Amino acid sequence: MIIVIKPKTPKDEIEKIKRKMEELGSEVIEYVGENYNVLGLIGDTSSIDPDLIQANRNVEKLMYVQEPYKKANRLLHPKNTVVTVNGRKIGGNEFTIIAGPCSVEGEKQITGIAEDIKDAGAKFLRGGAYKPRTSPYSFQGMKKEGLELLKRARKKTGLPIVTELMSVDLIDEFVENVDVIQIGARNMQNFDLLKAVGKTDKPILLKRGMSATIEELLMSAEYIMAEGNEKVILCERGIRTFEKYTRNTLDLSAIPIIKKFSHLPVIVDPSHASGLWWLVEPLAKAALSVGADGLMVEVHNDPANAKCDGKQSIKPEGFKRMVKSLKEIAKIEGKVI
Amino acid sequence: MIIVIKPKTPKDEIEKIKRKMEELGSEVIEYVGENYNVLGLIGDTSSIDPDLIQANRNVEKLMYVQEPYKKANRLLHPKNTVVTVNGRKIGGNEFTIIAGPCSVEGEKQITGIAEDIKDAGAKFLRGGAYKPRTSPYSFQGMKKEGLELLKRARKKTGLPIVTELMSVDLIDEFVENVDVIQIGARNMQNFDLLKAVGKTDKPILLKRGMSATIEELLMSAEYIMAEGNEKVILCERGIRTFEKYTRNTLDLSAIPIIKKFSHLPVIVDPSHASGLWWLVEPLAKAALSVGADGLMVEVHNDPANAKCDGKQSIKPEGFKRMVKSLKEIAKIEGKVI
Amino acid sequence: MIIVIKPKTPKDEIEKIKRKMEELGSEVIEYVGENYNVLGLIGDTSSIDPDLIQANRNVEKLMYVQEPYKKANRLLHPKNTVVTVNGRKIGGNEFTIIAGPCSVEGEKQITGIAEDIKDAGAKFLRGGAYKPRTSPYSFQGMKKEGLELLKRARKKTGLPIVTELMSVDLIDEFVENVDVIQIGARNMQNFDLLKAVGKTDKPILLKRGMSATIEELLMSAEYIMAEGNEKVILCERGIRTFEKYTRNTLDLSAIPIIKKFSHLPVIVDPSHASGLWWLVEPLAKAALSVGADGLMVEVHNDPANAKCDGKQSIKPEGFKRMVKSLKEIAKIEGKVI
Amino acid sequence: MIIVIKPKTPKDEIEKIKRKMEELGSEVIEYVGENYNVLGLIGDTSSIDPDLIQANRNVEKLMYVQEPYKKANRLLHPKNTVVTVNGRKIGGNEFTIIAGPCSVEGEKQITGIAEDIKDAGAKFLRGGAYKPRTSPYSFQGMKKEGLELLKRARKKTGLPIVTELMSVDLIDEFVENVDVIQIGARNMQNFDLLKAVGKTDKPILLKRGMSATIEELLMSAEYIMAEGNEKVILCERGIRTFEKYTRNTLDLSAIPIIKKFSHLPVIVDPSHASGLWWLVEPLAKAALSVGADGLMVEVHNDPANAKCDGKQSIKPEGFKRMVKSLKEIAKIEGKVI
Repeated sequence: MIIVIKPKTPKDEIEKIKRKMEELGSEVIEYVGENYNVLGLIGDTSSIDPDLIQANRNVEKLMYVQEPYKKANRLLHPKNTVVTVNGRKIGGNEFTIIAGPCSVEGEKQITGIAEDIKDAGAKFLRGGAYKPRTSPYSFQGMKKEGLELLKRARKKTGLPIVTELMSVDLIDEFVENVDVIQIGARNMQNFDLLKAVGKTDKPILLKRGMSATIEELLMSAEYIMAEGNEKVILCERGIRTFEKYTRNTLDLSAIPIIKKFSHLPVIVDPSHASGLWWLVEPLAKAALSVGADGLMVEVHNDPANAKCDGKQSIKPEGFKRMVKSLKEIAKIEGKVI
Repeated sequence: MIIVIKPKTPKDEIEKIKRKMEELGSEVIEYVGENYNVLGLIGDTSSIDPDLIQANRNVEKLMYVQEPYKKANRLLHPKNTVVTVNGRKIGGNEFTIIAGPCSVEGEKQITGIAEDIKDAGAKFLRGGAYKPRTSPYSFQGMKKEGLELLKRARKKTGLPIVTELMSVDLIDEFVENVDVIQIGARNMQNFDLLKAVGKTDKPILLKRGMSATIEELLMSAEYIMAEGNEKVILCERGIRTFEKYTRNTLDLSAIPIIKKFSHLPVIVDPSHASGLWWLVEPLAKAALSVGADGLMVEVHNDPANAKCDGKQSIKPEGFKRMVKSLKEIAKIEGKVI
Repeated sequence: MIIVIKPKTPKDEIEKIKRKMEELGSEVIEYVGENYNVLGLIGDTSSIDPDLIQANRNVEKLMYVQEPYKKANRLLHPKNTVVTVNGRKIGGNEFTIIAGPCSVEGEKQITGIAEDIKDAGAKFLRGGAYKPRTSPYSFQGMKKEGLELLKRARKKTGLPIVTELMSVDLIDEFVENVDVIQIGARNMQNFDLLKAVGKTDKPILLKRGMSATIEELLMSAEYIMAEGNEKVILCERGIRTFEKYTRNTLDLSAIPIIKKFSHLPVIVDPSHASGLWWLVEPLAKAALSVGADGLMVEVHNDPANAKCDGKQSIKPEGFKRMVKSLKEIAKIEGKVI
Repeated sequence: MIIVIKPKTPKDEIEKIKRKMEELGSEVIEYVGENYNVLGLIGDTSSIDPDLIQANRNVEKLMYVQEPYKKANRLLHPKNTVVTVNGRKIGGNEFTIIAGPCSVEGEKQITGIAEDIKDAGAKFLRGGAYKPRTSPYSFQGMKKEGLELLKRARKKTGLPIVTELMSVDLIDEFVENVDVIQIGARNMQNFDLLKAVGKTDKPILLKRGMSATIEELLMSAEYIMAEGNEKVILCERGIRTFEKYTRNTLDLSAIPIIKKFSHLPVIVDPSHASGLWWLVEPLAKAALSVGADGLMVEVHNDPANAKCDGKQSIKPEGFKRMVKSLKEIAKIEGKVI
């Protein structure tokens, strides 16, 4: 950590800051510039709260040398993490496809889609039972009943279930019934929820918040891991920008960057990123080419009558075609679908 | 609502869309352009889920004529809402100041600050007991004990308490102990939490999410109001932009815009918006000039040793000076501090 | 175009707006909603200045049905445009690679790089002679001499030259000496420059401004085309967002969107988008997979001593490796490199 | 400047970097951390091109201690710059109002508006002769004739003229005819134009680009000042964000920040920032309260028939009312209108 001291700060004030840093366990080196003095801290600074330093009126700014996360940091854990769920892998040389409708709407719907996507090559079934919606007047999900229907679809197809948890009070229900717990973009910094899932031993699919930096995403992963659960899968799903043609702007650069800084697997959700069904296939291919470990895709048998996100859902036939062309790219990339 | 149909859509497909809209309770008017056909819907469309329409592959785009919120909409409730808490008003011709530390750190600290800000002119005491922090290694708040200390400060000063609720499972504790429940920026779209506080009769201070549009903020207010609780105070606290010198970019234009579209009171938090103590006073003055109904400001007796946000906290003396100059502007604006 | 009238606007004021629109050549259809009246315009509205309508105090908002560009619009020109330069194509089933250093630094440098990239598969040579730099104290390019050196490299390798024009007063020099004139991101809305190059018959490489929407990019293309020059190649090079790890955020969704709305070819610049050499290859592959017509890549023989952008430049060996893996993907996509 | 070296970089590579920095005139201090080595440079580093350092593959990142501008830097020029134009001041304890229409449309129009705004308290007349417009089909300004009409309005009222220069080839015409040369937001990084106006001795009004950071704005000012012209007035006019209700998001925090880092005067343009006439007055008041040195406001006698920007233009009566309430705030702030 580097601390830049304000110009003209009295010597004894600088000494005070140095002593405080030393008390917090850092070795401090000072160097005296023309206009600014600078303090360099040596040692593990990830547990020093930056607020404590920046609050000092004599501190001009503070700059990190090392990333502020530890358990998610590749520097300290060089090998790729592979998360295994019922024998299926996310990470490593797999390119894992999670597919299914925005929300569970009925038994026939969810089971039919599950069978279709399984045939096409998906390894996991997604489907919302509890739905976060911008408007209180929109469909909020089938809730408990939705979970039951997902379980029936799993029984029929063997596909493990991925579904979103929105509230701490449902955590037992989710631990009992689902295979991968999804934390949605809107809850990426719902820290109570992160801590709660960090205490379970379920794999957690953590989506990037729509205005979260890559560093903040990794800090949220750190919240889960700090509680003991290291089975975290990250998901890039688009960030909010000034460009409004797409629902969000898919940030594919994030994939190789996350892989540089972290050992955790990272997948891409082209459906929520774009909000437009006809962008899903090109973005899915780009995600594979850029190095992602998998996809999360919305598939619906009848998008025009879907209870949510029909605009961004592809049909089972389109999904099949897409997986076929993904398999060709996967071969080049040395990945298995 | 206006629906633009894709070029070359067959007539019978357009008819299908028209019939579907009529079933949903709208009168539909069609007009035929050179390249596009357009459908106009008449009637209350706020309960039509836009997903249902946009999912149709023959729909090019959808445009709102009327805002999608109802209870928060000034069009339907022209008079300003004034929220009253223990006889103190937020809204109307008051300019209400809420002040206090980022987090409660001890009895002497919180009571001392409460007395100082009360003397200077604040009407409410803020202070975090449960704290949302980016890093799991940062101070997370004094929790239950923090609430107790806030109550002691209230007892001593008479200042009602504003503090942040992060999790549904603490709602009873908050209803019992605090005067205004704050929903933080990171939880603006934690819909379960919104519904839960919507079922209480406590005033709710709803902060704008850091990447939320003004419309989304009002939709989140609608979530609370739809459950029956209409005592909602909005708070602009900066949005995330490419400019990184400030923690966020304070969007003061949002104030007159919210006042145009909604009857709810709206205050400004210059501390979180800027993240820099020396920007608090100029931004507070600007907030009053632009038409806000009040402020939420971080004040700490010893920022350099504050457990959080010391960098953006002003000292009691600075707060006093600031309120003094705010009072002069308030006089011009016809507002009472 | 759809005009939404403010609630409670007197009938005769609405009539005035209708008459004005009719004078501007549109047929007007009115429909009366519960709270709002709406006017729909039929006919070519691309030459109606939206300012003229929005300035009316009785107009609540204005919504486009049809995109505001004509010559760049695929609706009116369904076939893909292919730009041919000295027999080399950009567009169609080609995936064209433009490569070279940020700036021309000397004869040996530019010629050496030109030979290397030609061997590896590049079809055009890029290199800056006049450089836009954020700081006046940074290297500003070799200027006229730089153009001369580019010509020598062209003579030696046969590669046509792409280089950036920053100022109207150099236009004759560029028309005489270069093969493709580049308009940089910072000048995307330098309308005098756009008009000037629109009067030449040189192919124009138009880069997206760092905060330009896709629509604005196409409007800038329209400026060039409206002057008679339809040989426009678009280039996505990243947009400015809150995420600061990369120089910009590459918006790959823009590629299929541009292809939907326009017939113009569009390439991707992964070097400027990311600002980091190790992101160039994964992003280049993603660009090909998402449907781009080519790439613009910075290659330097000695990045650590490059006079600009060394941080984002790959070396000739890396470029060779990259083109090799691009060729494999191209085969799948039915494209020729 | 602080250079962070990649983990595991060989000692002799670090030595090479150190020697290179020493050759560039800096003293280098090294400190060895647990995972990273860090180099601190002492001396004036503003003329070291950061590209030269970051291009080194062994450099992890580079952090500035001191801002990269010199002439615009308050650290080196502590006193406020006051720009004087025909005896009228911008900066110091003046709050200077520049007003007028988006574009000059005719003699009666521009002279009439000039008289109105002068009576109300404006000190300068603005008006576009050459207009940057997003669409080539929109009104592009009266050009040379527009300048002539501005001069007649100046003759009649004595108000100095502020108008936008878009192209280097018109610079003589502008130097001869206008009093303050405006560089528009779209040309903030048109470096040739900046250099050209830097060679004149006219006051320059430099508008912040819509996606420019505060630092980039100051670097563009530095371009002008480095050529010898230190009469630069900065203008905040809104930045591009995800919020689309306003044309741009006015960043009022920028005002006190610019004042901290630079000695140059800075004004605010609430008309372009918001794009909505009814936001102009509240934002103008906020601009004064936050510490701006003045305003640039669009005023039109007949906005509904204005040739551009009618939507954001206020009428002379509204302008008069606004100046009246600004004068009350100015009194409190110790400023003169």
